[in-house]
Order: sequence, then C-alpha cells, then structure tokens
Amino acid sequence: MSVILCQMIRVAEYKAPMTRRITPVILCGGSGTRLWPLSRPERPKPFLPLLGEQSLFEETLARLTQEDVFAPPVIVAGAAHVALIEEQLAGRAAHIIVEPAARNTAPAIALAAEWVKDGPMLVCPSDHHIADTDVFHAAVRVALTGAAAGRLMTFGIAASYPETGYGYLERGRALSKGVYEVARFEEKPERARALAFIASGRHSWNGGLFLFQAAAFLAELASYRPAIAEGCAAAMTQSTSNGARIHPDADAFAAIKGESIDYAVMENSDKVAMVEADMGWSDIGSFASLAEHLPRDADHNAARGRVDVVNGQNLTVLAGGKRVSVAGVDDLIIVVDGDDILITRAPSAQLVGQLPGAKGE
Amino acid sequence: MSVILCQMIRVAEYKAPMTRRITPVILCGGSGTRLWPLSRPERPKPFLPLLGEQSLFEETLARLTQEDVFAPPVIVAGAAHVALIEEQLAGRAAHIIVEPAARNTAPAIALAAEWVKDGPMLVCPSDHHIADTDVFHAAVRVALTGAAAGRLMTFGIAASYPETGYGYLERGRALSKGVYEVARFEEKPERARALAFIASGRHSWNGGLFLFQAAAFLAELASYRPAIAEGCAAAMTQSTSNGARIHPDADAFAAIKGESIDYAVMENSDKVAMVEADMGWSDIGSFASLAEHLPRDADHNAARGRVDVVNGQNLTVLAGGKRVSVAGVDDLIIVVDGDDILITRAPSAQLVGQLPGAKGE
Repeated sequence: MSVILCQMIRVAEYKAPMTRRITPVILCGGSGTRLWPLSRPERPKPFLPLLGEQSLFEETLARLTQEDVFAPPVIVAGAAHVALIEEQLAGRAAHIIVEPAARNTAPAIALAAEWVKDGPMLVCPSDHHIADTDVFHAAVRVALTGAAAGRLMTFGIAASYPETGYGYLERGRALSKGVYEVARFEEKPERARALAFIASGRHSWNGGLFLFQAAAFLAELASYRPAIAEGCAAAMTQSTSNGARIHPDADAFAAIKGESIDYAVMENSDKVAMVEADMGWSDIGSFASLAEHLPRDADHNAARGRVDVVNGQNLTVLAGGKRVSVAGVDDLIIVVDGDDILITRAPSAQLVGQLPGAKGE
Repeated sequence: MSVILCQMIRVAEYKAPMTRRITPVILCGGSGTRLWPLSRPERPKPFLPLLGEQSLFEETLARLTQEDVFAPPVIVAGAAHVALIEEQLAGRAAHIIVEPAARNTAPAIALAAEWVKDGPMLVCPSDHHIADTDVFHAAVRVALTGAAAGRLMTFGIAASYPETGYGYLERGRALSKGVYEVARFEEKPERARALAFIASGRHSWNGGLFLFQAAAFLAELASYRPAIAEGCAAAMTQSTSNGARIHPDADAFAAIKGESIDYAVMENSDKVAMVEADMGWSDIGSFASLAEHLPRDADHNAARGRVDVVNGQNLTVLAGGKRVSVAGVDDLIIVVDGDDILITRAPSAQLVGQLPGAKGE
C-alpha cells in the first residue's frame, strides 16, 4: 500500500515546479569491521561488490543520478579512499570533500552543507542497500516538501523485524501529506523493547538518510553545536581544491570534537520531521544481514565460488579463490579472503568486529 | 590393572629364551580419505605428522625398534609411496615390498609371509596411534606364546566407548595365560549393538594387528583361499629386487582377487586366538578421532597454527598456513590445507570421505 501511496505522491511531485535540484551528499566514513575479512581498512565495505556486480557505493551513485532531480553528488571521505572513489565514479561528475580527520557525521555533513550553502541536500550513507529505488525516490520527493518548509527531514524505514542493531524513530503527529513529527529518537533497543516497537505500529528504523536545506541544517547546528558549526565554516573558508577534490583546512577541522548528526542536531532540534518508506533498506551491517540478501538453493545454501556441501543446510559461503567443503554442519557463515578464513553464525555475526583480524591485529 | 599384569608378563617374557626375532610387517595401503584435505593421494594419512612431530608411520617404526625383540621391518606399500617411506625411514634398515597393485590386506600380508618364510611376523597398520607402547610390547610378548603354538594371534583393544566404526572381537575361553579363543568376529555394529558389546565385558575392538608364524598363516591361507596363496607365492618366486626394494611379479599379483585378512583367513580359521590389551590405541580414522588426541585449552579448543576465537568452545582448528577466525560458534572441526578448507563436526566426520575433494574431484 505504501508503494501505491508513494507513487501517487511521486506523480504529483513531478508536476510541481522544482526550484532547485537536490545535492546528494554521500558519506564514506564507515569502516565495516563486522564485514571483515571482506572489508578491510584499505578496501572497506562501501567499495566491495557485496551483493552483485556493483559495490554499495556504486549502487548509491546509481540511485542518485536522475538529472532532473539530483545535482552531481558531493562525496565526503578520508584521503585513504579517494582513489577508490574516483575509480568507482568512473568519470561521473562529483565533488569529493577530503576529510583531514575522522570526526563522525555531524562535522562531515557540515562540511558538505558549507559547500552547498543554499538549496536542498540529501545525506546518504555510501554503504547501504536499497532494494526498491522507486519507493526511495518517492520518499525523497515527499521529504523535499518538508525540507522546503525549513524542516530537517529524516526517513523512517518500515521495520520488518525487531532488529536490535538499529536506532528507531517514533512517528508523531502529521504535519503535511506523508510528513510527520518525530515523537522520539530511540537508541538501539534491547530485544523486548524492539518487539514492543514492532508491535506499536508507530516505530520505524532510523536509516541514516536526511534531507534538508543546507542553510537550515547549518542554522540548527549553530544553535546546538556552535563549535562544530564554526570549525566547519572555518575549515571550508580556508579550504583548497584540486580538480574535483576539496581539501578543508586540516587544523581547523582537526580541532573539532566529533559527534554524530543524531546526537548533535536531530535529537535536539524542533525542526525535525520524518517520512516513512518501505524501500527494502538494509545497512548490510554484518554477515547476517548480507546473508539475507543472497540467492539460495533448495537446501537454503548461498554459495559464491567453489563450495562443496554434503549434508549441510542454511549455509552462507563466500569462498574467495579457495575451495570450501562442508560435511554435516548447518547454519554457518563462512567467508574466505586471501589468507583469512572467518566462520560465524547469523546470531553471532555482530561479534566479528571483536576479532583480532577485524581490529587490524 | 592391565598395565601391571602386562608388565609382569613382559618381565617374565624377557627371561624366556627368544628363538627368533619378530619381523614387523607394516602395511601402508590405507588412503585416509576421511582425513582429507590433510590426507591426499600423494601424501596419505600414514605419512602426516597428525599428532605431533612424527607421522603415524614414524611412530609405528619407533615402537618396533627393540633390537632384542624385532628384526628390521618389512613394509608393504604401493609404488607411489616408496619415496615417502624411504624418506621417513631415515636410514633405518628395512625391506619394502612394492605392491604392483592394491589387493587388500590378505595378499599384502601373504607377500610378506612369503618373504619371511619361517619365524614370527607382527602385522601392523602404518597409520594407527598407540599411546601406551609398554602395554603394546607386553601384549606382543603374550601373543608370541600363542604364535609359537601355531596360532594366528589377533589383538583385542579394550573398547572404551561404543564406537560404530570399528569391528569387534568377542573373547572365548582361555587357552593359556592371557591368550583366548575368539568366540566371534563382529562387523562394524549399529549403535545399539555397540552398546551391548560394551556392556558385555567380553568384546574388544579389532585393532588390525596380527602376530603369527609366517608358515602358519600361509598354511591357513592355502586352506581357505588357495588362489591367493598360490598367486602370492608365484609373485614372490618371480620377484626382483633393487636394494631394499622387492618387486613381486606384477602379472601374478594382479591376477589375485583382493580380500581382507579378516574375511580370507581370520573369520574361517580355527587356529585364531586373541590377546586383550588396553594400549591407548586409535586408528585416527577421522577428524573426530584425531580431535580426541589433541591438547585442549580452557575453552576445550584445540588449535594448530594461527587461530582467533571470540565466543567459541570445543573447536578443533588446524589452520595450515592461513589465519582462521571463529566468532560465536561451538563444536566445529576446521581444517585448512593449501587452497582447501574443510568444515565439519565430530558426529559428521565420517562424511568427509564423501566430499568431492576427498574423492579427488
């Protein structure tokens, strides 16, 4: 039903005059240690072809390329990944803001907002999967009406199960068609609380997507975190550029205390609102999440590479260049990359980040 | 108690005159597919350092080197393994009978018996582990008294649990001190039957060890399997030798129909008798069996090589040259060799032989 609703909205939006295209702001800061050994510091999660031919970053670029809606993206990333980004941009127009240091999402987004200055910007993680692009686009158009009214829009993802690894948004009263107040931001819940959220019908996952006027965000940031706002403004005023690369001033940026956009702005501002959408979103945050998106055979096994199984079901095996043979075991996730072999299970996949290998040891 | 009893017997035996030293006959015919990928056709189970520094073949040689008891061994093996055998003999005196074809144990032992001609021979698999060498030696001396009386002696291994993968011997009436008739040879039993064997107190494992006068064995073989006896006699009459290597005639040997010593002779002959011994024997026939013999840490994990575990117990990991990381999984056996990675569990370890890799595919 939400698809039909959103598509109706989308058709309506196409008729509305677009004063300005949306600038996508793609954040490439995540390390993806829970996807080690596939994800490694020199080749992290956004840039891996986890679900098919394309990397999650390439998927993200692809769904932000409608030229009537989106301006060329601004990508915020560390220096270590600029070469990978330029390779995967494959000639697409984009600007890359090279963060001099990692300072979490509020400063990263503020750098982009300083660059955009005026007009709407859509903040997207570079490492999430969205199965239903049409619903995503429809939700963006609805959110744009909120952003045009000066609101900081966030996206509530229809919560299909009681995930304890995500934050939640509680829907408040309706503000306009499809736009709601956020009654409450909820941290990653315990399982009982997550079950209650699912039962409530008012809670959705916080997908880390935001849409707002750059100036509206910067004004709220200046209210609640003036030091971050001033530091980012200074870093961009003193920035240098090199082709499509923009280098904020390192000293000004390094002096900032890092904080997430949720803590710094969204949980404080009374201008926050939300759009709900069932867009087939996943953060592919662990091998359990990745495993859910892979095609499976009659034994419910998902295999990539050379995999032999005798009496084994519900296996997820990414064999790398090796041969993986399984005899009489079910429910495993097996990942091979180079000289590293990881073995875990879906309920334990969050533990992967604690392994010495994932911590670079 | 059996240790004390056997040591008493051993001391007694030392005083008895030894008419002739025992010739060990070491059979190297097993393929060990259930230990793939460690065991491979070109480097099979007997020649691998599975339990420590020494291979099972080297262990076997080491426990047969008391010069007052044992003559240099006769090793029966296929041509493919002669180089490995000579390497692991490391200069020890031995003869190697090179089988022109694989024809199971009755013909292999008959070749050795033809070579020994007269005097006692102790038939030993090359790929078994015996933890308590003193008990083994004591049992050999007891068996020697039976063999001197013309009996075909077999060894009943104290059965410590209801293993369904081994054959069993049922003890009959006593013939002389520590020597018993074999009431019955039992094939690998179903679990209920194995439990009944353990409960009976009369059943022990058939360890595949035999001690007899070469001539006594050949006479019984001639009675029950004249074709095998004649074929082996012809193959040895027409054999050639090259240093320590003895090459039976290929045509004569190839014409023989292969059969195990149990089927061809032991289950038919009324000259069969047994000695019981609790010698810490294992055939290391699967990774489950190997896992039982490895040292374990406080989490009951056994690791060889680089192994990292977060929340995992009762793991057996042989990491080869790779790094194996386990997060939140228990009770696995993980074996890495070159580009092959095997994952199984102890109750399923018998399935390993069914994997394409184990079958050379």
